[in-house]
Amino acid sequence: MVHTGACIANLLGQGGSRKYHLTWNWLKYFKNDRDRRDLITCGAAAGVAAAFRAPVGGVLFALEEAASWWRSALLWRTFFTTAVVAVVLRALIEFCRKGKCGLFGQGGLIMFDLSSNVPSYGTQDLIAIIILGVIGGVFGGLFNFLLDRILRVYSIINERGAPSKILLTITISIITSACSYGLPWLAACSPCPVGSMEECPTIGRSGNFKSFQCPPGHYNGLASLFFNTNDDAIRNLFSRGTENEFHMSSLFVFFIAIYCLGLVTYGIAVPSGLFIPVILAGATYGRIVGTLLGPMSDIDPGLFALLGAASFLGGTMRMTVSVCVILLELTNELHMLPLVMLVLLISKTIADCFNKGVYDQIVVMKGLPFMEAHAEPYMRHLVASDVVSGPLISFSGVEKVGNIVHALRITGHNGFPVVDEPPVSEAPELVGLVLRSHVLVLLSGRNFMKEKVKTSGSFVLRRFGAFDFAKPGSGKGMKIEDLDFTEEEMEMYVDLHPITNTSPYTVVETMSLAKAAVLFRALGLRHLLVVPKTPGRFPIVGILTRHDLMPEHIHGLFPNLRKSH
Amino acid sequence: MVHTGACIANLLGQGGSRKYHLTWNWLKYFKNDRDRRDLITCGAAAGVAAAFRAPVGGVLFALEEAASWWRSALLWRTFFTTAVVAVVLRALIEFCRKGKCGLFGQGGLIMFDLSSNVPSYGTQDLIAIIILGVIGGVFGGLFNFLLDRILRVYSIINERGAPSKILLTITISIITSACSYGLPWLAACSPCPVGSMEECPTIGRSGNFKSFQCPPGHYNGLASLFFNTNDDAIRNLFSRGTENEFHMSSLFVFFIAIYCLGLVTYGIAVPSGLFIPVILAGATYGRIVGTLLGPMSDIDPGLFALLGAASFLGGTMRMTVSVCVILLELTNELHMLPLVMLVLLISKTIADCFNKGVYDQIVVMKGLPFMEAHAEPYMRHLVASDVVSGPLISFSGVEKVGNIVHALRITGHNGFPVVDEPPVSEAPELVGLVLRSHVLVLLSGRNFMKEKVKTSGSFVLRRFGAFDFAKPGSGKGMKIEDLDFTEEEMEMYVDLHPITNTSPYTVVETMSLAKAAVLFRALGLRHLLVVPKTPGRFPIVGILTRHDLMPEHIHGLFPNLRKSH
Repeated sequence: MVHTGACIANLLGQGGSRKYHLTWNWLKYFKNDRDRRDLITCGAAAGVAAAFRAPVGGVLFALEEAASWWRSALLWRTFFTTAVVAVVLRALIEFCRKGKCGLFGQGGLIMFDLSSNVPSYGTQDLIAIIILGVIGGVFGGLFNFLLDRILRVYSIINERGAPSKILLTITISIITSACSYGLPWLAACSPCPVGSMEECPTIGRSGNFKSFQCPPGHYNGLASLFFNTNDDAIRNLFSRGTENEFHMSSLFVFFIAIYCLGLVTYGIAVPSGLFIPVILAGATYGRIVGTLLGPMSDIDPGLFALLGAASFLGGTMRMTVSVCVILLELTNELHMLPLVMLVLLISKTIADCFNKGVYDQIVVMKGLPFMEAHAEPYMRHLVASDVVSGPLISFSGVEKVGNIVHALRITGHNGFPVVDEPPVSEAPELVGLVLRSHVLVLLSGRNFMKEKVKTSGSFVLRRFGAFDFAKPGSGKGMKIEDLDFTEEEMEMYVDLHPITNTSPYTVVETMSLAKAAVLFRALGLRHLLVVPKTPGRFPIVGILTRHDLMPEHIHGLFPNLRKSH
Repeated sequence: MVHTGACIANLLGQGGSRKYHLTWNWLKYFKNDRDRRDLITCGAAAGVAAAFRAPVGGVLFALEEAASWWRSALLWRTFFTTAVVAVVLRALIEFCRKGKCGLFGQGGLIMFDLSSNVPSYGTQDLIAIIILGVIGGVFGGLFNFLLDRILRVYSIINERGAPSKILLTITISIITSACSYGLPWLAACSPCPVGSMEECPTIGRSGNFKSFQCPPGHYNGLASLFFNTNDDAIRNLFSRGTENEFHMSSLFVFFIAIYCLGLVTYGIAVPSGLFIPVILAGATYGRIVGTLLGPMSDIDPGLFALLGAASFLGGTMRMTVSVCVILLELTNELHMLPLVMLVLLISKTIADCFNKGVYDQIVVMKGLPFMEAHAEPYMRHLVASDVVSGPLISFSGVEKVGNIVHALRITGHNGFPVVDEPPVSEAPELVGLVLRSHVLVLLSGRNFMKEKVKTSGSFVLRRFGAFDFAKPGSGKGMKIEDLDFTEEEMEMYVDLHPITNTSPYTVVETMSLAKAAVLFRALGLRHLLVVPKTPGRFPIVGILTRHDLMPEHIHGLFPNLRKSH
């Protein structure tokens, strides 16, 4: 759902799809980096809000996990988005109340409503909470470690093409089916509880007690977890006053199976998430711990299951506030909030000793150049000019077309510094920065001159409209290969001044790399110009891009740097 | 509570108080801008968490209202803080459960618990919600407007000295007492409801039904609101199934009185907040609207009171997510979340048409140079060099002590550019920026030289320890008046290179002021150096500080700029 929301938002952000006639004219106003980024954040928030019926949780998820640059305007926009989601969701649930829409709308707005009388807990329960937190941290760290290994193997398999992907998916499907159908045979039948509010055994797709192969009036505990919708399995685990519903052995088997299936399922070529498997596994071991500690604690095993889910979420996702609010909105159990917060703190702290959060790991594994908000300590020992990659390619303010075309062909750079040199200016002088995409649009206008002279901007730009330079949709930008120039044109000149950003952000070459990285990240830059410290030299030393600031690149240049954390 | 939390955090952040022996040695690690700022944010979050027993709401309040620079590390720290608050609060409430601590702990962890069966609401209720939202927006905007006027009058009165302050406080106290005692006489006595769970009339300080001057078996509705703790008054207004507890006239009188008392109380010389008056007033008109619309809506007047409180909070504070979560944590009424979100959206949108949020207004009124995260539109028509205030005072790398002392005496600047000039360098060259506080520490070392030569840093700094240059507590920094120099010393030289920040952030003079302002704000700078665009000139044009970027300063320089919003 998060992914779907973000995809729809991205589609809107690049102006819809002209191919499928899904476009409006006003969408062009979003065709810039910031608005697209904001839209995608709102889309992700809407996804969480819809998946867990947790509108505030969605806002916080977007804040904690999705957004790199947070502004109060963005907070307001995500809040607006999820408020609309909440109202629409509430209306649809109301509409579907009579079972018109299958399982949708079951449980109302709160999926696993636990609200009841004030649960009492005291000091002795804190020990149980700490144990749960530690278990969550250890299991979470292990989960992330194993998931990383498995995803690396899967990416090799998936790269071999569609048949491998499909084979992998089929294999995992068969294993899942075999587990779901095979493992319940291990569990013994239990007699239905006397005086239960719930129907036992359940008839239909959803419910608390699954008969499986048991005689009438009996149910199979393991099947009640495996042979159910995930929603119902979680509801079963969270349910209160059902201390004896599940045998310890059933819970153990279920925990191991769900932990392993969760690991192997994520990363195959089907849309699947991590939240539900993690909640299921966490709730299971929470219930195990709760049952074991039953004699010394007042808390119901159902609430232990909730705390277990919190601890495992904290251990894998490493989110705090958003997980807290999502759990609150899922269960409507506000009285447990101090315990949920405590267990999240402990499990996150423990798991942070081992590795990074699961989403951070996946970003690293996919090779996405994601910059942390803070600079790494080793960056303090370097200066900005240490990591600029050469050779520097710069343009003159009025440059020969052939030179530009050559530079665009041999490099993949997206930004080039522009330097005025005599006779255009008295001394070499940094004019600014041009973007590859803008240069390509300018070249396509073929507004060339015979002489190397500065023109007035209006002359060069009169062939273009305001939106010709707008950011195109992914993969739709012009390419240098699309343009052909005659020999004669290649010898002509083009004035880059009108499309040059004359005040790009600059840092001096002696600035600490850590400081430059923070500047780069805080302003969300794509190019940062490095200028010389002393006057009289060529006015530009190099350009820093995101790739120059990646740990891999820096460690490649300086292998002896202590890889401190 | 927010203020108290922030004050305690600030005290810790400046190393405690040596005077009162409230200090530890390790506190010195917080003696820098960022850690102090973070500590104060955590303190504010702890205050909200403790005041409303809303730990997640506290985190979000800090995010939405208190923190200017948000990082995920800060999220984690505020979450940790409020988790500790929640656990301690829960333990104290448990300890105080038997009434050992007066009224503290009443109501348990959730102050106004409304949780009950799922309230049903449908499309026809949306109209009521929209009306409430619009009322909240209008009343909120009006409240902010009036509060601004009243605070301006109060600040004139308060400036006259302590007697005026005390007189004002006494006047307001008398008015409040007169209202609280006098107005209930206007209301008629009502007979106690039959079969109520609550004691009627109440005996003691707290409760639902106050007898005031009524005969036995009767209560006075207006006294039940006025003659009560604010907590109980809110609880009364929020209570369900009590449609007839309050006469419409009582609610009207109470609303007008609380609205006006809230306006006149804030800003007098007693610690008082806005949240509780705003919730009270909002809940009252919510209940009025709920009673009026009773026939056409399924929602209980108690829930209308909750939505009214939300709408008025949205209209005055203009916070969304944090108000939403605080209300959720106050009332434990998750089912109303979509409606609360909707009403907040509407009231904030309406009120934003009139003026700014109440806290923003107060910041402006106090003359605090608070920078918005975004640049104002008129800044796009200016460049960085337009607003630098002159004349520029710069130091040479090796400067005469007399010049420095003179510069420090005649100006209040906190940062000075350092420029090496021949013969120290070949051409004038910008070395960097020195801070006034560092210069003062360096001067106090009296490490002067007879000749104008560059030294090695270790020679100059060997008299100082690592923490001599640390940021001192408020008002404790060295002053130039504290230092006395002989005639001979004034003629000597001091090398500023060792204490110069050699890579300050710079922008070119032609950079759009909007862009420079965003850089300044995003990085949380205090000084931004403006350098010339063309080479060969003196290497610094001026320094931008926060005051140079304030709207008042810019409009003073350019009175003709359209004051667009």
